[in-house]
Parts: sequence; structure tokens; C-alpha cells
Amino acid sequence: MMKIVQKFGGTSLQDAPRVAHVAQRIKDRHSQGARLAVVVSAMGDETDRLASLYHAISDLSDESHDMVLASGEQVSVALLVAALKNLNVPARGFCGWQLPIVTDTHHGAARVVDVQTQIIESVWQENGVAVVAGFQGVTKDNRITTLGRGGSDTTAVALAIALKAHSCEIYTDVDGVYSADPRLVPRARKHDTISYEEMLEMASSGSRVLHARASALAMGRKMALVIRSSLTQEDGTVIKDEEQILEKADVTAVTHRTEVAKVTLTKVADRPGVAADIFQTLLAAHISVDMIVQNIAAGTKKTDITFTIDRSDVTNATQLLQDKKQSLGYDQLLCDETLAQCSIVGVGMREHAGVAALMFQTLAMHKINIEVISTSEIKISILIKESALATAVQALHDAFQLS
Amino acid sequence: MMKIVQKFGGTSLQDAPRVAHVAQRIKDRHSQGARLAVVVSAMGDETDRLASLYHAISDLSDESHDMVLASGEQVSVALLVAALKNLNVPARGFCGWQLPIVTDTHHGAARVVDVQTQIIESVWQENGVAVVAGFQGVTKDNRITTLGRGGSDTTAVALAIALKAHSCEIYTDVDGVYSADPRLVPRARKHDTISYEEMLEMASSGSRVLHARASALAMGRKMALVIRSSLTQEDGTVIKDEEQILEKADVTAVTHRTEVAKVTLTKVADRPGVAADIFQTLLAAHISVDMIVQNIAAGTKKTDITFTIDRSDVTNATQLLQDKKQSLGYDQLLCDETLAQCSIVGVGMREHAGVAALMFQTLAMHKINIEVISTSEIKISILIKESALATAVQALHDAFQLS
Repeated sequence: MMKIVQKFGGTSLQDAPRVAHVAQRIKDRHSQGARLAVVVSAMGDETDRLASLYHAISDLSDESHDMVLASGEQVSVALLVAALKNLNVPARGFCGWQLPIVTDTHHGAARVVDVQTQIIESVWQENGVAVVAGFQGVTKDNRITTLGRGGSDTTAVALAIALKAHSCEIYTDVDGVYSADPRLVPRARKHDTISYEEMLEMASSGSRVLHARASALAMGRKMALVIRSSLTQEDGTVIKDEEQILEKADVTAVTHRTEVAKVTLTKVADRPGVAADIFQTLLAAHISVDMIVQNIAAGTKKTDITFTIDRSDVTNATQLLQDKKQSLGYDQLLCDETLAQCSIVGVGMREHAGVAALMFQTLAMHKINIEVISTSEIKISILIKESALATAVQALHDAFQLS
Repeated sequence: MMKIVQKFGGTSLQDAPRVAHVAQRIKDRHSQGARLAVVVSAMGDETDRLASLYHAISDLSDESHDMVLASGEQVSVALLVAALKNLNVPARGFCGWQLPIVTDTHHGAARVVDVQTQIIESVWQENGVAVVAGFQGVTKDNRITTLGRGGSDTTAVALAIALKAHSCEIYTDVDGVYSADPRLVPRARKHDTISYEEMLEMASSGSRVLHARASALAMGRKMALVIRSSLTQEDGTVIKDEEQILEKADVTAVTHRTEVAKVTLTKVADRPGVAADIFQTLLAAHISVDMIVQNIAAGTKKTDITFTIDRSDVTNATQLLQDKKQSLGYDQLLCDETLAQCSIVGVGMREHAGVAALMFQTLAMHKINIEVISTSEIKISILIKESALATAVQALHDAFQLS
């Protein structure tokens, strides 16, 4: 029988009727004969509520932090199991420690070390559905951990790999991966298939349908992913290996991200280890850095380093970097919170040099100034004024004929 | 060093400032050199919120029910540990499964089977405070359970017994055990000491400071209990063995309980097994029955059976009993939700026959009609109109000179 892992996010589980709806969908699939393991997030905004309860007392990412946050998924698991039983679907629920999903001891951003699946296999033996708490695990020492941002997606993919599942279905509030955010670009087109690399670049450049970490894990182990809506019966988008995709478009999608802050350290000494110092400091505080750009003017020994972080991390990051001003030896710390990031992504672009040119031309035609450019093999990201974002996304979507 | 178990209820932990206040109290005691294990309830009305989330989906008292409810205490534990760390008190938090506190599989009302204390001893070795989730345990099969009403008190007493603690301190929002509810009787007096038996009878007749089940457990193992306020530095009330109390008052307290419903089944066949059938039916649905009165008129083969339950259980109980009308063979099911229970409690009363007489006389003087009478060795309980309750409690408190 086909083994499937399904993951339902917080929006799909935000109240009792939604939980009942998800249970019905699971029942439909179960009665078609699939062996199901279902991973759930906390209901609606519950994780935010729990985080603010905790942050009223502490800012540490420690055992207590994870013990508070993990309670949200525990509740979702139990409610979904209850809703499945209402529909006469035999179901069993598991917190991370009950499987267990073993992680390292890095509280707040733990990495999965091992996923035990014997209990799920035994639930399947009795024709049951296993419901598993996303986002959480347990250390070898029996302490509760959480996996950090995108944790439930990561739980789902890791579980699918451990179970040797046929595919991992991510249910969300959109019905697949689009060529751009349909709220900005009404004619955005849903992709039937995209490659792991594209999903990964799109995730890290602002598409919220799947977390980059989960995309990377799936890519590494070639686990087939499906992005679907929990509200419709649409087919969704299948994410698979690039080789299995016949027609590779130059550009697959225009993605964007708001809530970006650009930080620049001016006149940093241009010697080995300085960049490492800066980013190690931010990493240790769990501040994730996206674009990094460094330019050295000819003939000087000083350089400016620019990078982007989430605006919510600005206070923390500037404090940390000011504390280390002496050892880092920079001149000024500048921060711009008026910008947004816009990216074009596509595996085809690596063979087509014209992509960057068309992108920059298009923006110039709309008189949109580019503040920072950063490229990877299959992505070009730029920073522009947030006020110009909607125009830029629409214009690029048209220019690359993505509709 | 002295080993102490402290228990803090939901009111004492209802927001971040209260949690910080409790942490400070724990720190004060810890710095005096005590080895502390602290048991906590869920914050404020969190258990009610979680229960209503769950009951929107299911009415079963099963694994899911317990998995939802147990999350509340998990959050309290973690927040208190974080608040203790803020005060530089080394602390470690534990859910039921992390010690473990092993229970039977009776979800929603599990009984404690075994409490492992090695981890707490190891926290103490490092001069730390152990914080333990009340109300919850885990089966041998690794499933989360809850202990039912009064569960956190029971956890505290069971843990104190397992740790061979010097005493178990129950912190609540009143500063001890009173001769009557001070809100009804302004001159009510706080007791310095009372016996386990009295506490047990008071708990089961409406005093909310300590649950009857925890009193009974402490009595059976002679664990010294202290009822104190988390808000003041008052000494509180010590609950100990009757033999250790020198002067035994005839009557210790007047207690009362509202939200009572009186249920009467009329013309029940007077044959063995009928009462067992009725109460077994209610027990199986976790409906707890308090007073039970049965009278058989001379020369008949029919009897009326009257009992009291919580008003919140009326819908459920009447449904269950109507479903079994055929087999129970009664005539009518009558229900009165206008009554309240009032009791006088005291170990001394067993040697003084005049207590009942004075009680009934006092009520007669105030023209209060007694609907039902039920007595135990150290308690007399009556049902009266709820509208007469305040008058009755005040009058009895005066008559027995408890001020």
C-alpha cells in the first residue's frame, strides 16, 4: 500500500470546523487505501501567542522556550485525532518524544538526528492513521526541543524520508506554487511541476508555501513533494528532480519578500576573518542573513559589507554588532528598513545570459532603482524600494511571459 | 537539608508578573537552604480554555482529551523555570512523562501508580529547584494521562510522599483553612491546625482550598500539609494527624457548596443491585455523586433514591438515567437545581450528640427548611434553598461559636 506523509499548517487547523474538515480529507484518502502519517502545526496564531507569553518572561532560546512552544502542536495533534475518531477513522497521536523524533540539543533551532518509525508502522498494521506533532523533537536526554522556523515542514519531510514514503504532501492555504504571488499578480500561473532547486530558491527568496530547509532536505534525499490546498481538490504542484522535468523554462517565478532590512557596515578592514566574525555573531543569535554583498574599492584596504536580515531582527542585530564594534573595526553601521527584495528564479536561466539583462532593463523602464544585486546559479535577487515592489513584480512577470 | 514540596495553583500563576512573584518566593525559600520540588497548575483559566477547545470536537475522556489538557501545565512549568533562571536560581522543569509520574490508563481520571524521583534528586545534587507539571502523568505505554479534578494537589502530595519530604505546602489565594467562607462570614476564623479527617470532610463538602483526594492521600501516608497564601507571608494552616492536635473543637468549620443539583428517582424497585446500577452508570461517565439518601416506606416494595451531583453534570446524568429507565425500573426522574449544600465538620462531634440538635434548632429558628440530611462520623450535611444559604452559614457559625 502507498505510504504518504501529509502536513497541515496552522491556517488549516485554526478552529474546530477546520480541524473537522481536515479530518474528512484524511478520511477520504485513508479510505482509498493509503497508509497515512499526518504532521500538524499549532492552530492558527497559537505559536505567536505562546511565544509572547514566554517572551514576557525570558529571551533565552533554551529548554523552557521549547517546552512552551511545543505545547501548541501537542494540542493540534490531539484535536485532529479526536476529529478522526468522530469519523470512525482509527487514529493515534504522537508528540516528538513519543516516536521519538530525536534532535540535537540546539534549543530553538534543533536539527533532526533520528526519526523512529516503529510505532507508526504498528499503527498502520492496525489500519490506523498516525498524527505527529510538527516542529518538535526530543534530545537523547529527554528534553523537549523545537526545530525553529519552518519546523513543521521539516518534520514532515524528515518523517517521509524515514518512512520511505511515496510522497510528502504539504497542505497550505494556496493551491500550489505560482509564478508570482497572485495577490500582486492576478494573472500568475500555477506550476504543475517545478524542480527542488527552484523551490529552494523561491522559498529562500520569499515564497511562503514551503520552508527552504524542508526543500533542501527533500532535494538531498529526492523525496517527492506535493504542495496542495487544504480547501480545494486541485492537484497542486509537484516538486521533483530537475532531470524528470522535460521543458525547463528560463524563469519559473518572480518572488518577493517584504519586512527586509538592509544593514551596511562601512570601512571594514579588508582582512581574512572579518566577514566570518560578523556572520558568526549573527548566527549565534539565530539571526538569519539572506543577501550578502561586499565591494572593495581598488587601492584601498577598507571595504563595505552589506547584508539583509528580517526587520524583526534589527534591534538585536544592531546591538550585537555595536557591542563588537571594537573588534570588527568598522566605521559606521547603517540600516535601511524601507526596502523589499524581489527575485527571479528558474533552472533554465543558467544557460541563458540574457535573463539578467532583461530583468534590469524592465526595471529601468519603470524607473525603479536597484539598491543591491545578488545572484545564485538559478536566481537573481535585487533590493528595491518597498513602494515600487508591486510594480516591479508585475512588470517582471509580464516581461518573462509567465502568465 | 529539609525537603519540601510546594504547589502553586492557577490563580498564583495567571500572568507573567504573578509567575515572577512565585519565582521570588521560591528563591527566598531556596536560599534558606531547602531542597524544593515545585508542582504547578495551568495558568489562570487555561484548563477551561483547553477543555472547551477539545469539547468543541469531542466528549470522550480519552488520550486526546488528556493530550490537550496536559499542555497547560507544561507551559506553566516552562514559564516558572524561565522566571527562576531570571533570578539566577538553577531550575529544571519536568512534564509527567519526564520524571516519570506513572499512572494507570484511566484517561481523564487516572490514578498515580508510581512516582520516580531520581531526576529530582539529581537536580538537588546540583543545588537546583525541580519544577513539575501537576495534574498529569504517563502510562507504561507512554501515553499522556490527566488525574482529573484536584489533580495538581494530588500530584503534589504523591510527589511529597515519594520524595519522603518534610512537608507539602499548598499555595492558594486564601491564607489558610477557615471556620467558614470569609466572603459569607466576615468573622470567620483561620485555623492554625486541623486534622486530616476534618480537611477531607471540608474538601468534599465545598471548601475549595484542597481537593478531597489529595487530603485522603496525605492522611493515608501521614504527609504533613500546609495551606498558605501565595500573596502574603502568613503562616497558614497545618493539617496533621488528629492525635497531634490537643484541643479538639466539637465543630471546626461550616462549609457550603453551591451549583448543586438534587436528583430523585421515585418508586425504584427495592431489590439488591438497583442502587449499584444507578451509581455505576454515573461513575462510568465520571459524574461524581455526593450525598445519597434512600428511604423505604414501611410495607411497600418501592423506594425513592435521592442524590446530589454538580449542576454541570445534570444534562449528562439525566440523559444516562433516562436511557436506562427500563432496566432501572423507576417511575419519575425529578431534578431540583435551586438548592445548596451546607455542612458542619469537626472531629469532636463524634463524642457530642448535641451537635445535630443544635444545628437543626438553629436553622428552625431562622425558618430554613431542610430538604435532605446526610451524616458521616465527623460531618453533618444538609440541603437547603440556595437563597437561604448565606443566612444559614452565618447563623451556624454563630451558634457553634466559631469566631
